[in-house]
Amino acid sequence: MISYQKPPEVRGGLRLHQNENTGGCSPRVIEALRKLSAEQISQYPPSAEATTAVAKHFGVPVENVCLTNGLNEGIMVLAIAQLRSTISGAAAEAIVPEPAFEIFRVHIAVAGGKLVQVMPQPNFVFPLDEVLAAITSKTRLVFLSNPNNPTGVSIPLDAIGAIARRVRGETIVFVDEAYADFAGVSFIPRLQDFPNVIVGRSFSKSFGLAGLRIGCVIGNPRTLEPIRLAVPVHSLNVAALTAIQAALGDREHFENYLREVTQSKELLYAACDRLGLKYWQSDANFVLVDLGGSTESVLKDLAARGIYVRDRSTEPGCAGCVRISTGIVEHTQQCIAALEEILCAARS
Amino acid sequence: MISYQKPPEVRGGLRLHQNENTGGCSPRVIEALRKLSAEQISQYPPSAEATTAVAKHFGVPVENVCLTNGLNEGIMVLAIAQLRSTISGAAAEAIVPEPAFEIFRVHIAVAGGKLVQVMPQPNFVFPLDEVLAAITSKTRLVFLSNPNNPTGVSIPLDAIGAIARRVRGETIVFVDEAYADFAGVSFIPRLQDFPNVIVGRSFSKSFGLAGLRIGCVIGNPRTLEPIRLAVPVHSLNVAALTAIQAALGDREHFENYLREVTQSKELLYAACDRLGLKYWQSDANFVLVDLGGSTESVLKDLAARGIYVRDRSTEPGCAGCVRISTGIVEHTQQCIAALEEILCAARS
Repeated sequence: MISYQKPPEVRGGLRLHQNENTGGCSPRVIEALRKLSAEQISQYPPSAEATTAVAKHFGVPVENVCLTNGLNEGIMVLAIAQLRSTISGAAAEAIVPEPAFEIFRVHIAVAGGKLVQVMPQPNFVFPLDEVLAAITSKTRLVFLSNPNNPTGVSIPLDAIGAIARRVRGETIVFVDEAYADFAGVSFIPRLQDFPNVIVGRSFSKSFGLAGLRIGCVIGNPRTLEPIRLAVPVHSLNVAALTAIQAALGDREHFENYLREVTQSKELLYAACDRLGLKYWQSDANFVLVDLGGSTESVLKDLAARGIYVRDRSTEPGCAGCVRISTGIVEHTQQCIAALEEILCAARS
Repeated sequence: MISYQKPPEVRGGLRLHQNENTGGCSPRVIEALRKLSAEQISQYPPSAEATTAVAKHFGVPVENVCLTNGLNEGIMVLAIAQLRSTISGAAAEAIVPEPAFEIFRVHIAVAGGKLVQVMPQPNFVFPLDEVLAAITSKTRLVFLSNPNNPTGVSIPLDAIGAIARRVRGETIVFVDEAYADFAGVSFIPRLQDFPNVIVGRSFSKSFGLAGLRIGCVIGNPRTLEPIRLAVPVHSLNVAALTAIQAALGDREHFENYLREVTQSKELLYAACDRLGLKYWQSDANFVLVDLGGSTESVLKDLAARGIYVRDRSTEPGCAGCVRISTGIVEHTQQCIAALEEILCAARS
């Protein structure tokens, strides 16, 4: 069975391998967490206020939002709800355009569904025709990431709409928007025309709350019903519910981080150009870089300097590639300096 | 479809309706949480140290422990792993001796399994023969709670062993020990002889961490494998992982609470005797009390005084019953005083 290769638990170095917010959460979050009482810790956490705050943030009615213990839990329950039942004895199918967030594969397998991979086009142009051609009467779920992970490449919103129109009514098109804040584009305003689309959002990345586990799925309340039922009761913890309200209130911290990410990407692109490395323009907070044949040794040399980036070389279409988080400019500069040192030494 | 009736989110009163720790978590937990940094909040949480601490606490090897986002998540993934697949076209069966923790039902339904209820005996004596008789070739899961919720009545460990021996090898007998600290009895020391038994533990109750969501499942590493795979990656949050280590280090706080619970139960039994109310001796941190015909009005009158207890009158064998948490003695005394006032007024 497919299992997730969790990166080793490294601490103390420069973590550019899990698309985390390298600037940390808002100080307002820390302030709010310090006010948590022993009584609050011992009680099942109330989630109504946080859900209202999240709905307001996305400009949708509160009944269109279901908070989840990180977006991973949203993906898990979506897979269970959609793929658990067989169709005339055959496994329900889930379409995944590759390369993709590997968690999709894990939870398709756990739910007993059948993974239908659509292989990448040159330069990761979204394979709309191929996705449409992969739809069958057994398709119950289409997993999309916008922007995509690990490429950073966006899907045109019209392509998502075209897929949602083509599938059967009970099929859900899931749009993982974990990195959408960095792209500034979302399918959420179009959701009212597409009751079979569910958008997933994470507060791990742009809001820097990965450690507390909070995400949500957004969609038509009736479409959300089986998902809401599958999410374990009291899934969200009081620290996450407290933190999200504080984080949403600190617009400045959020916007400042978006600016750092934009600047970091420009610096990394320029460095890749200087070093003659292929990369893809990214709408997310990371960049996929092709290290050619030297991936393994560069990863080792970076790790020896306490810098961790993610090996994606075994993902479809990603031979030789690593994914580098582009957060705070200073961190990106450290990574670039190390890359230059390593690659120039190798070439001299 | 079966759905969980989540109690309303009441605050500010005396919460005796969710078996929470009414004394709050250890002050060491609060101290540890105050040290969490913005960086820790923004990073995916490392779980190795907390897992080691939990394994040590239960005296089992670390590979026999899988932490879960509250024990509810453990129940959920167990149901998915065991009940997802049909058996020759029929739903896999899960046996539940009633009355039971209602979450079992919810996740059996979500997983697509078939609920096989075993109805209660007089005075909730464990129905061993009836459970054994309910086992079929389609049984894949047996849900037991020891002590049981909502009755507080314990299951003899030998009865659990007898069930585990009778079922097929791939069937899991799950022993929910959420309240076992109050009973002082656990199946864990017997696990090595029963590779098809999984014990679930919660830190919500005796350790007062309900708000942070942390529990675990313990068993043979090979039996745990499909469960470990189904738990979403990074399911545990950094606040819970930090808190559990601090909580396990404060033995005095823990033992003091156990003493309060014991004393609270004695006080409540005595009050029930005075008031002529039937109750069941409980090995947990709550007592099931039969209010006869006046359940609804007493619940209303208690709520009017800001005291919340749980209506269990619609559960099998529990007509007329409420479940009252017995935590800190002072809280129990407040509840007893209110009960006496309400019932004596009704009778005068």
